[in-house]
Amino acid sequence: MTDRLETVTYRPIGIVHTPFTEVDGMPIQPTAALGVRGSIDLTAGFEPGLLDLDGFSHLTLLYHLHEIGRARLVVTPFLDDAPHGVFATRSPARPNPLGISTVRLVAIHGCTLEIEDVDMLDGTPLLDIKPYVPEFDDRQGARVGWLSGRLDRLTEVRANRRLRRP
Amino acid sequence: MTDRLETVTYRPIGIVHTPFTEVDGMPIQPTAALGVRGSIDLTAGFEPGLLDLDGFSHLTLLYHLHEIGRARLVVTPFLDDAPHGVFATRSPARPNPLGISTVRLVAIHGCTLEIEDVDMLDGTPLLDIKPYVPEFDDRQGARVGWLSGRLDRLTEVRANRRLRRP
Repeated sequence: MTDRLETVTYRPIGIVHTPFTEVDGMPIQPTAALGVRGSIDLTAGFEPGLLDLDGFSHLTLLYHLHEIGRARLVVTPFLDDAPHGVFATRSPARPNPLGISTVRLVAIHGCTLEIEDVDMLDGTPLLDIKPYVPEFDDRQGARVGWLSGRLDRLTEVRANRRLRRP
Repeated sequence: MTDRLETVTYRPIGIVHTPFTEVDGMPIQPTAALGVRGSIDLTAGFEPGLLDLDGFSHLTLLYHLHEIGRARLVVTPFLDDAPHGVFATRSPARPNPLGISTVRLVAIHGCTLEIEDVDMLDGTPLLDIKPYVPEFDDRQGARVGWLSGRLDRLTEVRANRRLRRP
């Protein structure tokens, strides 16, 4: 088993630009950032990989949470006052700081993708773009544990620097 | 910008076990693998991160597609006979071979998670576990481009070794 646990290394395929130059005040999910414009600068060599992407209304972005400091296994997330295991939260202070956001695709011009509903920091290194497909990705009626009854706070809660790298 | 494009390195947090020891015949999405049982062996030190995860019915797993060979920017996916840009597909032959699957959580025993609807290879290195939250992750009515009209083939199409590392 040990060979499977070797580290893996990725090279970002581009950069995500957003209005959020610091953690304070950031939305904590795309669904709390409706209409917020951003863009992706894809590294030039990857442009052929965008063929037919313009048919999709939403993209799922996988990215590196580059401003996050030390991982914590138990965190108190923004939507609650009680601690939970980090894998039971969407906190960025994860052992592998991988972020995932489904955003709206507005337009593609060459290697620039205009997107909406962005909830990541400006300058975020992008690792992958996947087309969002409800038939693959939606799970209607999923149970949400401690988040149940706390989601009405989603649009009023904003991030702050307690999560930022010191 | 170049400093942002530095490589990122992750260490798997555990291993996913599934009935699929080779690519041939694998389901191509969790929604084509309903009821297929698997498990996660989480590395022991991460167990505190599971606190309260048992309240969630579904988990979104991020993992390394360890058996995928060279990336291709234009691919012909299993659900179509025409080529598309890799970022407009869920093909594993991506520049950064990151996989994402939302699976059903059945039970947690210590560092072992029993899961269902698994569509990954046995031995897959797991990078992250996130709770699946419809209010964060669902986008009803999303347009799906070239996949429109082809999703009825989802449960009959199976993977084959053309995607496997040579």
